[in-house]
Amino acid sequence: MENRKIYFDNASTTYVGNEALREMMPVFSNIYGNPSSLHSFGRDAVNLVDIARDRIAKAIGAKASEIYFTSGGTEANNLAIKGLAYANRHKGNHIITSCIEHSSVLEACRQLEKDGFIVTYLKVDSHGLINFADLLHHINSNTILISIMTANNEIGTIQHMQAIAETAKEREIIFHTDAVQAVGSISYNVNAMGIDAMSISSHKIYGPKGVGCLYVRDGVKIQSVIAGGKQERGVRGGTQNVPAIVGFGKAIEVAVRDMSVNNKKIKTIKEYFVKRLTESISDVYINGHPAQRLQGIVSVSFDCVNAEAVLTMLDMQGIAVSVGSACESGTIEPSHVLKEIGLDDVLAKGTIRFSFGKSNTKEEIDYLIETLIPIIEKLRNISPLRKKKRKED
Amino acid sequence: MENRKIYFDNASTTYVGNEALREMMPVFSNIYGNPSSLHSFGRDAVNLVDIARDRIAKAIGAKASEIYFTSGGTEANNLAIKGLAYANRHKGNHIITSCIEHSSVLEACRQLEKDGFIVTYLKVDSHGLINFADLLHHINSNTILISIMTANNEIGTIQHMQAIAETAKEREIIFHTDAVQAVGSISYNVNAMGIDAMSISSHKIYGPKGVGCLYVRDGVKIQSVIAGGKQERGVRGGTQNVPAIVGFGKAIEVAVRDMSVNNKKIKTIKEYFVKRLTESISDVYINGHPAQRLQGIVSVSFDCVNAEAVLTMLDMQGIAVSVGSACESGTIEPSHVLKEIGLDDVLAKGTIRFSFGKSNTKEEIDYLIETLIPIIEKLRNISPLRKKKRKED
Repeated sequence: MENRKIYFDNASTTYVGNEALREMMPVFSNIYGNPSSLHSFGRDAVNLVDIARDRIAKAIGAKASEIYFTSGGTEANNLAIKGLAYANRHKGNHIITSCIEHSSVLEACRQLEKDGFIVTYLKVDSHGLINFADLLHHINSNTILISIMTANNEIGTIQHMQAIAETAKEREIIFHTDAVQAVGSISYNVNAMGIDAMSISSHKIYGPKGVGCLYVRDGVKIQSVIAGGKQERGVRGGTQNVPAIVGFGKAIEVAVRDMSVNNKKIKTIKEYFVKRLTESISDVYINGHPAQRLQGIVSVSFDCVNAEAVLTMLDMQGIAVSVGSACESGTIEPSHVLKEIGLDDVLAKGTIRFSFGKSNTKEEIDYLIETLIPIIEKLRNISPLRKKKRKED
Repeated sequence: MENRKIYFDNASTTYVGNEALREMMPVFSNIYGNPSSLHSFGRDAVNLVDIARDRIAKAIGAKASEIYFTSGGTEANNLAIKGLAYANRHKGNHIITSCIEHSSVLEACRQLEKDGFIVTYLKVDSHGLINFADLLHHINSNTILISIMTANNEIGTIQHMQAIAETAKEREIIFHTDAVQAVGSISYNVNAMGIDAMSISSHKIYGPKGVGCLYVRDGVKIQSVIAGGKQERGVRGGTQNVPAIVGFGKAIEVAVRDMSVNNKKIKTIKEYFVKRLTESISDVYINGHPAQRLQGIVSVSFDCVNAEAVLTMLDMQGIAVSVGSACESGTIEPSHVLKEIGLDDVLAKGTIRFSFGKSNTKEEIDYLIETLIPIIEKLRNISPLRKKKRKED
């Protein structure tokens, strides 16, 4: 068991799957034309981009003309928030989002606030759900955009999408959802679900890094963030990242094709993990909604331990997990999501995100639990908080 | 000679070189961690990104801390123009650029104009050079940024970088250069050359698409365009595109290592092409500066032919060339660069860009010339313009 490496951080990023990689490989050095070029090298590249665009559109029930390629989920969220806000400014300057969105949505909103926009950040309950009455209460005649993530990347809670979408539609407000963490786990049909704009990232669904897309319903106005040539119908300048787009297209096709098999597998793994965890270790709390959630993400708060110490000790045993969200984990700030669901400081600082993927096994869970038990015990034994609590008992 | 494919569009994009591709390959599925993650998968990814950052910094004489990865040249130009303008707005609102910049610089400037910035677009002479007195004349106390491309992507003219940089430095104005087309052909030392910010693209130098960088001198303030996590020291959010960054790092290292060999090779090819072209076909004009130019780009105006017809007929013989610049070539608008150097409509519409790379051969030039002679003859024979000119003679 010594030199093994086990990856329980699939919500941070995934490896590129074989089928996607196989399609990408010839593109780097053989089909290398610029899709904007008019000759055969260019046409061959365009054909590949078109195939990928069709696959992505099909995967979410959209039209190919509604897909705009970006460099990833963060850019897609920036394009959605800023691009939709500026293009629809003549209708109003108010945006509604939630306080547990990904940093790319929150930071884009903060940039807009500096430029005269008003942003409402909806609070969430202890499960991470927004309150529907609260949403209704904040909508006003200046509201042009509602942006609510489908599923949270730290705690896995899935919002009531249908109700939010219908509310937006009735009031002719644009509804955007950050679907980066949900695509591949949840079936999407943007028309049936009333979604006007949606961000997707490739590297969360076994596709390559450096590519993603924004779906924008035909007829919804959007302004470019990365200006330049006429690529992506003028919405996103820059030579398209053809090999990555090819890999992304294949990855999303595979993800949708295998979704029910993978979800079943991951659910089994997750339930086995939760059972073994709660049987083996006391004073653990699982965050997020108990039912309405992604199966792959399990946020666990361990009382009276420091999560970074747990992460480091697991890492020394070859096990990869995350504290807070991956994109923030270079920093030591406590996760804004855990704060917003009302975790106290001790629990927030003792929270680990285990995120499971299609390649994880029960046997890996056994190794995790067996590794985790002594780590938690050791850390709790030296924890000043624990000693204090014991004295109080 | 039938089914061969010859690529004379290296200024649009290049294939990924073997050395770069070899380093990228294991990254997709083996070293796939998120560089923001704290575990070993993350550290392995960070190490690769650090190596690439060092290589790029070394290639241009910068520090690693001065390199910010982007999704390509277009994003780097957007980040430079908008990011530097907004971060330095308190000092003034005036920007100077040239009328022959890449569309990503021009469009970013136009976005800024809508937000209260004043932009001066310097005219160029018939060789594509800006006038130094004109630059001095337009600088005022509100000028915060001068952005002039090192070498033009359509006609190859290289600007007087040193003079522009010194002028900017004396007046404490930030100097940015779009070096996308020049890197790999010209040696850079950002300190010696007085460059404060510089855009580079990977896929023009035998690296992968979907990655580039902006160099920004330490101490120069810049605001993010793609906001999100703390990646790239808060200047550019989003999970880094690790495999592409690895390929980019290797590609620029190889480009600098092999620069003099490649430049010599390409100069020979180019001179052979120009000699054979001018000997074989009458009424051809080569655009751009006769001496101060990139060797790889030859913009040729053919009197009384339609360039798109030439492109199509060459393409049918397996030869790839470009009309106007690649990024615009999906559109039928005539090139803004050719207009600005004063070409009349007939010549502008008859202009082809041949761009040579390190893999082109003399024998390919022979095939090109032999294919081109009957095409031009045929097109001129049916040209109404030619008939009109003949009557006038």
